[in-house]
Amino acid sequence: MKLKMGMIGGGQGAFIGNVHRMAARLDGKIEIVAGAFSANPEKSKQSGAELGLDPRRVYPDYQTMAAQEAKLPKGERIDFVSIVTPNRMHYPPAKTFLEAGFNVVCDKPMTFNLEEAVQLRDLVKKSEKVFALTHNYTGYPMVKEAREMVRKGELGKILKIVAEYPQGWLLDPVDVTGQKVVWRTNPEVSGASSCIGDIGTHAENLGRYITGLEIEELCADFTTFVPGRRLEDDGNLLIHYKGGARGVLYTSQVAAGEENDINIRVYGTKASLEWHQEEPNELLVKYPDSPRKIFRRGANYVTDVAKRFTRLPVGHPEAFIEAFANIYVEAARAIEAEANGKPLPNDLDFPTVEDGVKGMAFIATAVQSAKAGATWTKMITA
Amino acid sequence: MKLKMGMIGGGQGAFIGNVHRMAARLDGKIEIVAGAFSANPEKSKQSGAELGLDPRRVYPDYQTMAAQEAKLPKGERIDFVSIVTPNRMHYPPAKTFLEAGFNVVCDKPMTFNLEEAVQLRDLVKKSEKVFALTHNYTGYPMVKEAREMVRKGELGKILKIVAEYPQGWLLDPVDVTGQKVVWRTNPEVSGASSCIGDIGTHAENLGRYITGLEIEELCADFTTFVPGRRLEDDGNLLIHYKGGARGVLYTSQVAAGEENDINIRVYGTKASLEWHQEEPNELLVKYPDSPRKIFRRGANYVTDVAKRFTRLPVGHPEAFIEAFANIYVEAARAIEAEANGKPLPNDLDFPTVEDGVKGMAFIATAVQSAKAGATWTKMITA
Amino acid sequence: MKLKMGMIGGGQGAFIGNVHRMAARLDGKIEIVAGAFSANPEKSKQSGAELGLDPRRVYPDYQTMAAQEAKLPKGERIDFVSIVTPNRMHYPPAKTFLEAGFNVVCDKPMTFNLEEAVQLRDLVKKSEKVFALTHNYTGYPMVKEAREMVRKGELGKILKIVAEYPQGWLLDPVDVTGQKVVWRTNPEVSGASSCIGDIGTHAENLGRYITGLEIEELCADFTTFVPGRRLEDDGNLLIHYKGGARGVLYTSQVAAGEENDINIRVYGTKASLEWHQEEPNELLVKYPDSPRKIFRRGANYVTDVAKRFTRLPVGHPEAFIEAFANIYVEAARAIEAEANGKPLPNDLDFPTVEDGVKGMAFIATAVQSAKAGATWTKMITA
Amino acid sequence: MKLKMGMIGGGQGAFIGNVHRMAARLDGKIEIVAGAFSANPEKSKQSGAELGLDPRRVYPDYQTMAAQEAKLPKGERIDFVSIVTPNRMHYPPAKTFLEAGFNVVCDKPMTFNLEEAVQLRDLVKKSEKVFALTHNYTGYPMVKEAREMVRKGELGKILKIVAEYPQGWLLDPVDVTGQKVVWRTNPEVSGASSCIGDIGTHAENLGRYITGLEIEELCADFTTFVPGRRLEDDGNLLIHYKGGARGVLYTSQVAAGEENDINIRVYGTKASLEWHQEEPNELLVKYPDSPRKIFRRGANYVTDVAKRFTRLPVGHPEAFIEAFANIYVEAARAIEAEANGKPLPNDLDFPTVEDGVKGMAFIATAVQSAKAGATWTKMITA
Repeated sequence: MKLKMGMIGGGQGAFIGNVHRMAARLDGKIEIVAGAFSANPEKSKQSGAELGLDPRRVYPDYQTMAAQEAKLPKGERIDFVSIVTPNRMHYPPAKTFLEAGFNVVCDKPMTFNLEEAVQLRDLVKKSEKVFALTHNYTGYPMVKEAREMVRKGELGKILKIVAEYPQGWLLDPVDVTGQKVVWRTNPEVSGASSCIGDIGTHAENLGRYITGLEIEELCADFTTFVPGRRLEDDGNLLIHYKGGARGVLYTSQVAAGEENDINIRVYGTKASLEWHQEEPNELLVKYPDSPRKIFRRGANYVTDVAKRFTRLPVGHPEAFIEAFANIYVEAARAIEAEANGKPLPNDLDFPTVEDGVKGMAFIATAVQSAKAGATWTKMITA
Repeated sequence: MKLKMGMIGGGQGAFIGNVHRMAARLDGKIEIVAGAFSANPEKSKQSGAELGLDPRRVYPDYQTMAAQEAKLPKGERIDFVSIVTPNRMHYPPAKTFLEAGFNVVCDKPMTFNLEEAVQLRDLVKKSEKVFALTHNYTGYPMVKEAREMVRKGELGKILKIVAEYPQGWLLDPVDVTGQKVVWRTNPEVSGASSCIGDIGTHAENLGRYITGLEIEELCADFTTFVPGRRLEDDGNLLIHYKGGARGVLYTSQVAAGEENDINIRVYGTKASLEWHQEEPNELLVKYPDSPRKIFRRGANYVTDVAKRFTRLPVGHPEAFIEAFANIYVEAARAIEAEANGKPLPNDLDFPTVEDGVKGMAFIATAVQSAKAGATWTKMITA
Repeated sequence: MKLKMGMIGGGQGAFIGNVHRMAARLDGKIEIVAGAFSANPEKSKQSGAELGLDPRRVYPDYQTMAAQEAKLPKGERIDFVSIVTPNRMHYPPAKTFLEAGFNVVCDKPMTFNLEEAVQLRDLVKKSEKVFALTHNYTGYPMVKEAREMVRKGELGKILKIVAEYPQGWLLDPVDVTGQKVVWRTNPEVSGASSCIGDIGTHAENLGRYITGLEIEELCADFTTFVPGRRLEDDGNLLIHYKGGARGVLYTSQVAAGEENDINIRVYGTKASLEWHQEEPNELLVKYPDSPRKIFRRGANYVTDVAKRFTRLPVGHPEAFIEAFANIYVEAARAIEAEANGKPLPNDLDFPTVEDGVKGMAFIATAVQSAKAGATWTKMITA
Repeated sequence: MKLKMGMIGGGQGAFIGNVHRMAARLDGKIEIVAGAFSANPEKSKQSGAELGLDPRRVYPDYQTMAAQEAKLPKGERIDFVSIVTPNRMHYPPAKTFLEAGFNVVCDKPMTFNLEEAVQLRDLVKKSEKVFALTHNYTGYPMVKEAREMVRKGELGKILKIVAEYPQGWLLDPVDVTGQKVVWRTNPEVSGASSCIGDIGTHAENLGRYITGLEIEELCADFTTFVPGRRLEDDGNLLIHYKGGARGVLYTSQVAAGEENDINIRVYGTKASLEWHQEEPNELLVKYPDSPRKIFRRGANYVTDVAKRFTRLPVGHPEAFIEAFANIYVEAARAIEAEANGKPLPNDLDFPTVEDGVKGMAFIATAVQSAKAGATWTKMITA
């Protein structure tokens, strides 16, 4: 009765792999039954053992896994695979599993580059399988509330989006000194961008999710502050959205003492809103001429859309894992429908392959702008 | 390999039952395999079906469950039972399962009255089984950090504890009008106290957990603000701790717009600390003559004790479910040791039957003080 | 055209004297022209010189000052005197100046004891002069906004008041060691109470100002934490208000790292409000079933009552001195009317001698309760 | 003994004129004795009367005032003039009074355009008079504390400055509809920029004050959101500082519900700091690997530099007027020295004509960049 999940990557010590597993488990609707947890078959085996999996379903590589799982009878084989490897290794397993007839959940950014993203979109369409991208910050209930406010016109016409995402963990030059392998700053693994690729894309996605606005052109100023680092560790953008709205998006991986402070402000003609991921249970709304309002997750007065993604009453805070789990909840609804040959629900709310293509186009455009000396660059259409 | 959990109570629509299940599932170490989810056997059956349990292990009542599970071979039968029923129904199943040789996790307050609590303590001792009480707020990493600070003397001698717990949900007289069954305000189900019994006991437990201080005497002022309500919905206490510290503890269930704002301030001769459950990832420390410090969950600089109960890096907030899960994590460590015939780890960190007895003694003393017109009353020893 | 002010006390280095002067000066309606700034005539002379006063109007003692000023022609002599001496020296000069026909502004607590307060009330009535007490925290615009909300019934019936006033400056035993003269802890100068007399009375006044509720009885637990100190440095109260509301009021002078955090929460049947002196430009209102609201000083939507006490537009913060000045603004309006033989405006908004009597009765009742072992004590009527 | 101040502009109803007067009065060291308060002589007369000035020293225009005051004997004539008119009218009276031998305090932005600024600098040098510019946000004690931290190297090398200044008051198109005269958006009065000229220049000045960094080049994106408005009401900049630091500076006058939220974050290799004008008594410092620290105005542990600009003890908040007064305090120190023929103190801390020239160059460069389509533009040297 539970959906059966397989995992690619996420072996011992992998932060994001464990997040995916906690998120998948939380609601008791998904169980992890198989995996190829590491490029190192021995490490994969150990990781599977730690998770208590049947050793026969812990595979040395994703190709074997796809082939073997496909041979298992329906009801026993996995219903979907979660891909939680570094960027370079998203597309190959995604392609393999889609072609083998499996649904896919994939970490972001979606692919190594835009070309792969476009190819993946074609593959997903052709496969008619479910593909979900874990832009997890859109899983927060108060982010959904924010989107509802914009949709209902409560902010009026949107004039400006200010999205920030400062982190500080790469202030330490461990990647340059070689003390530690940091794949994020390695262009062969991560792609053409570190800061914008890893976190800027979250900020872009969050703004688009809440407002629906598409970027027309942007001006991206990249800096590599740590000498010897191979990719940018700081990126600041000015943005022109289609329809005339303006944007400021700034990100850093070398902002001393910042943790994971993705936050967003959206300004409209009638009101503005503000949301901070590190205090995610609140949404602040400011009006030109009436008191500010604080909307709180779990309250009766929030919209049904936000309520649907809420597990606990007001005052019992929810956080990162629960938001992440909301992506899985929605992917699972789609996968169940697909499995039962039913049409997909029309209120599905998770990031799709199309979001992934837009995210990769955003990264590619920002890189192009930055390389040209932070000049205004039209958003690449893909 | 996973621990097998049974559940008493927590049927469809039960908030706290679902919280226990999410907490138990989160880390992939516990699976729910059996339950008697409701006094109504039909509802129990449906709840079990919703959870995807084997129908043979969904029981019509807890007595049958204890008897049947005990007959199953080791490795198949449950390793422990979680009791998530209203207060009146904590002791009977706890007794039954302990006597049947099962470990027990039990919701708070531990029993219907102090007499039962004392008896339960004897039963636990005699049984040599693990008994954990879900005073979940002590599961938060920054609460553990606070306790470590006190232990290491960083606050100096403790002078004063201010603990608050305002809620607002009982401002609505649904229980009196009969629109809704609210067992918390029903003395036959809840015991002699509503506000102090449900939430005051959390605040007391939190103060004792962080500081180790025991109450010597207290003065409790109870009020029932909603006419016709059978138990107090507001309770304020002055406290004298053994050793000379002072306490202020105030609680309410009729505080308009308050959600679940349990918070605590501890004042010592060298520093003071402050923690708010609704923003649980921070611990604020104030000093007489140096800048205030904010300690953040997940940071490298927090103690190993807090780190041990942390799943995510700094800036990726954790919240209520994760804290709740930390009680399960520790109970599970004890249960595993017990199952393997090993001595219990000496760093176990979960609320015990002794905490439950103290909690019930606190409630009984507060009720006695309140009934005597809010007079100073020595803490009942039990 | 400016009102002429004299000052008793407030010589060199006196914090509160300088506050009074800044507050008086701020709006350009009051000028300081005379003073007896210290019990030490030489120090008084120097203080007057620093302030640039005419040496003939810097007096060796308050008696001389009253006598000499009274001889000056109207238009030249002072319009009122401000008394900013320690508690013991409030009543004698107040009496002297009232009897000499002068209006009086006086620091709080009003007198050395309740008897003096009652006598002072009689003197004020008899004199028909203006008497204003500088319970300055009621001068904040958002405190006035809070009172308006209560008056207009926006909170419904008031159920509970929680007032806090922790400070930390007396954690240092400088008074006991003799390193420093601290008149606050000296009963011969300060009266029967330190903590409640100095700051508890502010908290009581603030609650009464906002809600209009009067205390029926209270239970006061006093502690002297610093060995050898002669008065309490910590005081916690439970309160029963007339009409059934409940109160918790706690104060401390030994709360490590606390600065001057007077704050208040008022809970009603419809809504609750919260205000913090250290962030005085905001008023937070919480509702049972709609978003929280933040009211901001200076905004168009605040009441005219709050606007009347506002100097700067929204977002340009005002603070302690401006609130203090609002007491002077109102006292000045009364004094001008009195000087011109006009009836006093009926919307005057400053603390009166009656507030002072109630404050002294509150202190006396708290002291009596504390001495009797923190027993419930009826509010002394005076 | 008090310094004698004259005022140009600031007649009835003028917000900023009244702010200057309150700031000047606060410490009792300055008195207003003369003025030409309006271009309308009748309005000037009335304003002077309201201020209680000698009618002979209320002038119909600034030229007359300069001529007449210069004829008064030293000790009677004004010591300095404060210019609080719209931008266009800063330079003419500044020139007149400097040439007549008077010291000048002037509101910002300093002049109508950069050419005037350069000329004014020459005039100031030639005159050997004191010239102070009221970039008031640098008067806040915790801004001075921030600068001290940077100076002492506590942040390491500065990598990035993020300065924000959103306001919302021009969301209302009153200037376009003609309901209200808004000189800020009138290029004939305000100069070539509204948003950057009025508030962007504060943000630039604040960043330069704290860090000492100079702009090398910038990219400024201006938008006029309200149709028909003649100047930009929104401006966002990317900045390259000399030495390699990066900047993001964004401002708006049409940000719904924003008040006056100038705030700054400075990121260094060792730590970062954050300050918000609307809560000015705190300075937050974040470190890569130790707890965050909150520095509080008035505390013993802050630097002597911040203490020098502090009037009240910790916990007794200071705000906008006090910060503004700090500019006057320092200008007054300089003016006194000048009057007494003494060398200027070498720790003077107020914005000078040089700051004004830099501010005007910043505005001119931003306008040039914006007009060229938000292209990177070298800072104009002047």
